[in-house]
Amino acid sequence: MNRYAKTHVSEGARTELHDLLGLTGAEISINTLPAGESVPFVHAHKRNEEIYAVLSGTGTAVIDGETVALAAGDWLRVAPIAQRRLFASAGGALKYVCIQVKAGSLEDYTMTDAVVV
Amino acid sequence: MNRYAKTHVSEGARTELHDLLGLTGAEISINTLPAGESVPFVHAHKRNEEIYAVLSGTGTAVIDGETVALAAGDWLRVAPIAQRRLFASAGGALKYVCIQVKAGSLEDYTMTDAVVV
Repeated sequence: MNRYAKTHVSEGARTELHDLLGLTGAEISINTLPAGESVPFVHAHKRNEEIYAVLSGTGTAVIDGETVALAAGDWLRVAPIAQRRLFASAGGALKYVCIQVKAGSLEDYTMTDAVVV
Repeated sequence: MNRYAKTHVSEGARTELHDLLGLTGAEISINTLPAGESVPFVHAHKRNEEIYAVLSGTGTAVIDGETVALAAGDWLRVAPIAQRRLFASAGGALKYVCIQVKAGSLEDYTMTDAVVV
């Protein structure tokens, strides 16, 4: 396994990083949803927690029927079982990151997992 | 467990999302390294893969002695064992996200983990 891998994400509808970077603990996508459009389906997950980060624009997430406003700087955790669908506002595109990780997989982290050299 | 949790990340040196959002598969931090400054130590990890995303600014990551240029839009995977340290350029702050996940923890993802409703 390489010690590191780097890629640059330019403008585009969707970039998936798992294969590009050789990720083993997450799938990460960078997405642009055009103004007024939505992800074309409602979905949930079997085992994966999703974390959404809004990079720019505004929109909404509908989660189990509840509408959650989204704006740049917002971070959202969605449990595997929750039914979700994202919408971009009519006024502009919604750019966001979606991080998919296995729920319950994290053990130690930060200072308890780090080794300071 | 709640179906979802949301927070808004404003400007600041460092925001950690694990406890704020109740994450169970990742720790995520949003960081600002002032111009000309660096993370004050070299570190590796026991079990966690780290993924860095550069939001704005430029800088470098030194990984096992190799210097890797960083700019907005770059995404970087660093293996647990790699020794890393981040530096912001003299000209401006480096804003970045660091995603920590357990290496090897992801099983199915995207279409193989999703349930379309």
